[in-house]
Amino acid sequence: MRTVDPAKHEARRRQILAAATRCFARKGFGQTRTADICAEAGMSSGNLFHYFESKHAIFAAIVEQDGIETDALFAELSTMDPWAALTAFFDLLVDLADDEYAKLALEISAEANRDERIAELVTANDRTLRAGLAALVERATAAGRIEPGVDADTAATWLTVLVDGLFNRVAVDPSFAPKRERETLRQVVARVLQAN
Amino acid sequence: MRTVDPAKHEARRRQILAAATRCFARKGFGQTRTADICAEAGMSSGNLFHYFESKHAIFAAIVEQDGIETDALFAELSTMDPWAALTAFFDLLVDLADDEYAKLALEISAEANRDERIAELVTANDRTLRAGLAALVERATAAGRIEPGVDADTAATWLTVLVDGLFNRVAVDPSFAPKRERETLRQVVARVLQAN
Repeated sequence: MRTVDPAKHEARRRQILAAATRCFARKGFGQTRTADICAEAGMSSGNLFHYFESKHAIFAAIVEQDGIETDALFAELSTMDPWAALTAFFDLLVDLADDEYAKLALEISAEANRDERIAELVTANDRTLRAGLAALVERATAAGRIEPGVDADTAATWLTVLVDGLFNRVAVDPSFAPKRERETLRQVVARVLQAN
Repeated sequence: MRTVDPAKHEARRRQILAAATRCFARKGFGQTRTADICAEAGMSSGNLFHYFESKHAIFAAIVEQDGIETDALFAELSTMDPWAALTAFFDLLVDLADDEYAKLALEISAEANRDERIAELVTANDRTLRAGLAALVERATAAGRIEPGVDADTAATWLTVLVDGLFNRVAVDPSFAPKRERETLRQVVARVLQAN
């Protein structure tokens, strides 16, 4: 009887998700075939189907993984000084926002339009993101780092406008280099968090 | 010999673009068939192909039309007081940003990833938008409405981050009502345009 090594299984699963991410970012969800993902991951389709039953399941797993990582990130940020955590969050965003990530984010948003399961996952991830940001804003206000009178939920919503907008810029404007914009982004974030 | 009434031809063309916009927003570019557009526009495929040779040509025409309208809008805004023009621009955005428009914007950005012609049109439209906003920022600075020291191109780039981010919010978050956020958006715009 074959036994499954869980660490090996998980590593293989991650390898498929990484390969699929590259394919989806490059060709879009609709035009990526399972065969493309197999080729990119360097495995047979029989082997791939051992991990995921369909292209759709792989795509959903990528969105789910994104939610798990957002959760883990905010768990970590919740132990930090809240203002330092907000700065760290947007710094991380700048580091993540490369062409592949930005194009995948667009694919996910577009796919959520026409696929209920993806829409559910995207809505849940978005809620996690906004709740995490709102909690940081609340803590930063309690710590006196943000002036009283800033509504945490409204502020969090506008911070997610910046998050989405930043990714869109990277995907659409080849002259936009997020790493060069790090300081400006910090400044814009600080201004969005000003009291009325 | 049949003669073509140019006004009637243009009206028919617009009707097709409006019908196609609804289809693309609802089902996405990939899953929309020409037959869907014909049904939505209430015309035969023979008639439709008289105006556009393919689904792709219709999609490209929508993106092109968007560019023409952006051009016309900034021509109009350039005759106004620059600060009033900036306010009017973001007010218009709030009025435009319904679910259909936001979902279409996502489809266009996603399609630009994998189609060179669409990418060219999107890049050109984006350049028009940024140039128009930068010109308004420059004029507002010259008029003393924005403090000196604000770089017009950088400011315009961050204003487009807000534009993109706002549309994404509408597409992704059903609880986000842009019309309720009009005042907050004005405030965020004013803050992005603060000097260092």
